[in-house]
Amino acid sequence: MTTERVDRLRETLQEPLLVTNPVNVRYLTGFVSTNAAILVEPDRVRLFSDFRYAEAAKEVEGVEFVETKRALLRGLAELLDGRLGIEADHISYSGFKTLEDGGLELVPRSGTVEALRAVKDEGELDAIRRACAITDRVYERIAGERFVGRTERDVAWQMEQLFHEEGGHGVAFPIIVASGPNGSKPHARATDRAIAAGETVVIDAGCAIDGYFSDYTRTFATGLLPDELKEAYAVCLEAQEAGLAGARAGVSGMDADAAARRVVEDSPFAATFGHGLGHGLGLDVHEAPRLATDSSDTLAAGNVVTIEPGIYLSGLGGIRIEDDVVVTEDGVENLTGFTKDLISVE
Amino acid sequence: MTTERVDRLRETLQEPLLVTNPVNVRYLTGFVSTNAAILVEPDRVRLFSDFRYAEAAKEVEGVEFVETKRALLRGLAELLDGRLGIEADHISYSGFKTLEDGGLELVPRSGTVEALRAVKDEGELDAIRRACAITDRVYERIAGERFVGRTERDVAWQMEQLFHEEGGHGVAFPIIVASGPNGSKPHARATDRAIAAGETVVIDAGCAIDGYFSDYTRTFATGLLPDELKEAYAVCLEAQEAGLAGARAGVSGMDADAAARRVVEDSPFAATFGHGLGHGLGLDVHEAPRLATDSSDTLAAGNVVTIEPGIYLSGLGGIRIEDDVVVTEDGVENLTGFTKDLISVE
Repeated sequence: MTTERVDRLRETLQEPLLVTNPVNVRYLTGFVSTNAAILVEPDRVRLFSDFRYAEAAKEVEGVEFVETKRALLRGLAELLDGRLGIEADHISYSGFKTLEDGGLELVPRSGTVEALRAVKDEGELDAIRRACAITDRVYERIAGERFVGRTERDVAWQMEQLFHEEGGHGVAFPIIVASGPNGSKPHARATDRAIAAGETVVIDAGCAIDGYFSDYTRTFATGLLPDELKEAYAVCLEAQEAGLAGARAGVSGMDADAAARRVVEDSPFAATFGHGLGHGLGLDVHEAPRLATDSSDTLAAGNVVTIEPGIYLSGLGGIRIEDDVVVTEDGVENLTGFTKDLISVE
Repeated sequence: MTTERVDRLRETLQEPLLVTNPVNVRYLTGFVSTNAAILVEPDRVRLFSDFRYAEAAKEVEGVEFVETKRALLRGLAELLDGRLGIEADHISYSGFKTLEDGGLELVPRSGTVEALRAVKDEGELDAIRRACAITDRVYERIAGERFVGRTERDVAWQMEQLFHEEGGHGVAFPIIVASGPNGSKPHARATDRAIAAGETVVIDAGCAIDGYFSDYTRTFATGLLPDELKEAYAVCLEAQEAGLAGARAGVSGMDADAAARRVVEDSPFAATFGHGLGHGLGLDVHEAPRLATDSSDTLAAGNVVTIEPGIYLSGLGGIRIEDDVVVTEDGVENLTGFTKDLISVE
């Protein structure tokens, strides 16, 4: 499978490509390391890493392993010559200069491997489906728990334990549990705030399976909500469904975003949905394509993306509803099974 | 405290510095975000981030918050002008070009904030001490558990639960549990391998407290070890103690490394210690200074570093022993309380 990925990459290259993004190295070779690079040439692939990873690197099929010193790019500057493409969005400016000062002729390239990664194959979809099935069960279980009086941090830790019990390979990112006014911060972390009655609790969480991630958000109510939050929930849900209905192969990321955004902008909550509608999901929690007002991507069959509008009311609370879907020729396949009805937890 | 850090940074600057490394942003302002930058000028500090972080950013003291679009560097290219230092080891080549194409005159700088971070203040030492005290208790508790027959992954998860129970704010990195032949890979992850009797189990783990990390390694024996591994343990421990004895303010990272490495090189295990002796520890698990054969750093009082020689025997197993220490004028203060005697777990 990975050899096939390298072959597909080769078809897109105008010069050999030095892949330094560890996630791209993993995608192309299966090799997991924070200090590795591969050089993809027409007739061979070399994998470079340091002593700490040498034993594991020797087990990678289809590549020649070359052990380098810990300062990987300095090592590569000594070993390599000629004209190479580099991953300009990943390599640091210092790293670029190190290679250039070593006499290499560098061609900045962007999104080359990422474009391949955006379209998932069956093995990748299978891993994401398994991560989503686990996430469904975790949300089912947390929805049966007490919330009021517990800290956000305590609920987040319980979620993490549930992900482990259900077979996840770790969480996708630090779990967000944002209650009451904390919910108006889209990227709040779980805090020591005790969850109160009569407010919203935004939970954003996912897990890994074989390196691939799920990423769901649900917003719960702790008992009766103020009318404004109830109405915001209804608008957010309508926007989320419009987002699902608007996504299919061939639609631009901008138009997909607009389908959901229109619902919020035409409501009393105009201008409260301050982020994009969604993002690709795979070996990274955020990858191509982007669904946003400034996206230049177009959706393709096999993309896996999130659909996650939000409404953020400063001082009062937040609402966000997020599903993970596979883009198909005529719509989306929703991988998220957990209900979007407003659930009351107490 | 953070204002004082900004003041110390200003004293080292020859031009305004655009700080884009999120860990450096956190160090200087306390603000945690994956998409933020600060511009430190003689008379003001501006904090830039997108909508998702705006609520939190407005609470940061001593800075002017400027909301930018999600594509942060493109936003900065439009907002800023003149001559700026940039963090050349962190900013991507693309990011550099985006700013340059926006008309900014950029001065590549390296390690500017990192040099400040390398010397810890009392508040930082207190957080690391607390993380180490928790880690001591977790190692005490795991040493009382059964190992043989359980998978590495299962032991790793139990460690993670213990870190939570003891009050850690999450783990420092995915816990390494490397048993038998897996131990010869210094950066092995925990796998589904069942731990057997008569082998070594390398456990490398730490936790976070208020963003600061601990990072310990201990090697356990599951019953009687082959003589070669017993001897390797004794050599590794002697090397580790030589490393502790050789570290103090004013010693180069190269000499500190050599003090420990000499012990291994003079033993039957010469050439099996393939990585550096240690690294700085703080808001990153790996930061300045480095203790290694190719380090150009010099130890200073207030550095917190790991001392972690290892012996890796392909096909047989590994040994690593790692303490966290504060460098002082005349030696080190060892923050690691857990025993280094070879403990048998079964």
